[in-house]
Amino acid sequence: MTAHTQEIVKYDKLQDFCIRVFEKLGITHDDSLIIAENLVMADLRGVHSHGVARLKRYVDGIRDGMMNPKPNEKIIRETPTTAVIDADSGMGQPVSKRAMELAIKKAGELGMATVVVKNSNHYGIAGYYAMMALDYNMIGSSMTNTDVLVVPTFGRDAIIGTNPIAVAIPSGNEKPFVLDMATSVVPRGKVEVYDRCDKPMPPGWATDEEGVTTDDASRVLENFKQRAGGGLLPLGGEGEELSGHKGYGMALLVEILTGVLSGSAYLDLVYPKNKDGKVLPANLGHYFSAMRVDAFRDIAEFKADMDDLIRKLKTSSKSKGSHRIYIHGEKEFEKSAEYKKIGIPLMTQVTSNLRGIAQDLGIEYMS
Amino acid sequence: MTAHTQEIVKYDKLQDFCIRVFEKLGITHDDSLIIAENLVMADLRGVHSHGVARLKRYVDGIRDGMMNPKPNEKIIRETPTTAVIDADSGMGQPVSKRAMELAIKKAGELGMATVVVKNSNHYGIAGYYAMMALDYNMIGSSMTNTDVLVVPTFGRDAIIGTNPIAVAIPSGNEKPFVLDMATSVVPRGKVEVYDRCDKPMPPGWATDEEGVTTDDASRVLENFKQRAGGGLLPLGGEGEELSGHKGYGMALLVEILTGVLSGSAYLDLVYPKNKDGKVLPANLGHYFSAMRVDAFRDIAEFKADMDDLIRKLKTSSKSKGSHRIYIHGEKEFEKSAEYKKIGIPLMTQVTSNLRGIAQDLGIEYMS
Repeated sequence: MTAHTQEIVKYDKLQDFCIRVFEKLGITHDDSLIIAENLVMADLRGVHSHGVARLKRYVDGIRDGMMNPKPNEKIIRETPTTAVIDADSGMGQPVSKRAMELAIKKAGELGMATVVVKNSNHYGIAGYYAMMALDYNMIGSSMTNTDVLVVPTFGRDAIIGTNPIAVAIPSGNEKPFVLDMATSVVPRGKVEVYDRCDKPMPPGWATDEEGVTTDDASRVLENFKQRAGGGLLPLGGEGEELSGHKGYGMALLVEILTGVLSGSAYLDLVYPKNKDGKVLPANLGHYFSAMRVDAFRDIAEFKADMDDLIRKLKTSSKSKGSHRIYIHGEKEFEKSAEYKKIGIPLMTQVTSNLRGIAQDLGIEYMS
Repeated sequence: MTAHTQEIVKYDKLQDFCIRVFEKLGITHDDSLIIAENLVMADLRGVHSHGVARLKRYVDGIRDGMMNPKPNEKIIRETPTTAVIDADSGMGQPVSKRAMELAIKKAGELGMATVVVKNSNHYGIAGYYAMMALDYNMIGSSMTNTDVLVVPTFGRDAIIGTNPIAVAIPSGNEKPFVLDMATSVVPRGKVEVYDRCDKPMPPGWATDEEGVTTDDASRVLENFKQRAGGGLLPLGGEGEELSGHKGYGMALLVEILTGVLSGSAYLDLVYPKNKDGKVLPANLGHYFSAMRVDAFRDIAEFKADMDDLIRKLKTSSKSKGSHRIYIHGEKEFEKSAEYKKIGIPLMTQVTSNLRGIAQDLGIEYMS
């Protein structure tokens, strides 16, 4: 690999470009801004798999009629603390931001609230929504089901998603706690990196077509394409020895709270096909919740304890060869600050895709 | 090991015995029943580490003045959907059952609710409280912080608890989903089993006094006693290769929602000592929540989808050498039904302890 494989782009120009792409595709300015913010936030946080590398998929999804640029979103059920929103096959991000805003509003009135979304699409990074609660001194959480890539414990086939969970909790002077994790050991992107480098994967990441741990990344990716069996392992790995059944349980919990509770699709039906194998619009489900901290404790006391907890962990003794204990979200806050200053490094494969999109849509690329 | 190492006892006689023990120690009949139910439920479900093997510790705790048999429980903060209860150093189970009942009552009125408890003791199995929601067609969850046994990712010392999470979700004809898991790879009990059998542990369960994975169970246990460093690894194991930071994140989430949110102690302060090393009463925090399913969907539709989801998973292809895919809680429901019929097998070490307690308190043992 040479230095030419990366190009540095300014985050605000990148965001502006994404907005123009979505507007050109018929999405309102406000909604385009939300999608662009979520994509660029992923790149800023170093989660490039959910950043602008995905833009082409969104563009294709809208052009193919799989994603509805002008959805008729509707609240189809509501109580003082809950709501269910039908996203009408729109983009996942705008409806999800509004769902989280509704959860925050309801929690503001009554202490806590949960809003679920059905008939939706890929919603980007889960942490984006959970973190919205921080400005209101609330604890926020967000989950979604996803395309099926994960095998259940003792199962051969990938029939569950990587089903992420994000939870954001405010602190005082320290950075807030922001857990944003897939419930699989690793995302598909990590397997792709090992494939590109032709490196054997650590055992415990993924299984082959018989459902047995393999270190062969290209075989795993090929099996995904062919739907030949095998997939990513749930957090905890293969079988029960290292408690893979716990990661499988977390993935299943997310599947139920997003897919089943919202009345959306679940398991392999989230990306459905008709009888002739034709791809139909996705039907993902999301879950958002917000909870006022001051319903339980004075916010100042809570934040002081959060700071104390964080400092105790960070100043605790390190294991041999380790120099730092992290709190969840800390690495991403640092990366984000750095990339806002120096720009975001993107693979040239990604930037050349972005240029292709600009040309295709007849809009200006980043100046 | 010989057949004599186990004794079979009837669950109802065991429960009756536990009730008499707690009554003798000054606890009301109703509260004694709750503690006894929780202990025996653990044994019925095969979670013997949380069953009557713990009775002696509770008896000693009450006699030593560490656990308050006649607490003055108080709701110290309340909103329509939330409450904070001060347990006044009482036994963990009765206050926790009442906290979950309050969450269910509030959720019945407004859709969802969360109740936290502070100044409490060991509350037994987490699943007991989460499962209370099932009878009301609600989703229940329960968490607690615990004695510190787990090392943070890149840390040397055990400064977090095994912090369990339990979630129970109703289904139709299939058994409900009941996830009840510690956020560590394994509980301390598993290390003790390997120590007794003098067997090397699988790598990834626990670390030595330098914070490095070890297969030496007796060394890990000895280090716990000496507070010499090392401990159980969070789900996902050592470092970040298999995503141990995710298990550490789950443990930390539980620590915050139970210890910090309730205003209880957290990390190593949950079992405090004074300056002279004298043990003081514990200060554990618990978290309970309930959510009405019909706030989101008609309950019949939800249950039909749950059954379908469960059947799809169970009938999915098995990995090589595997014959069955489980849903969380399934093994425990089967074990419980079996033990209710044939009796609960207890180690003779445990039954001889129970006889000792009976003699000590001057009450009749099981007839």
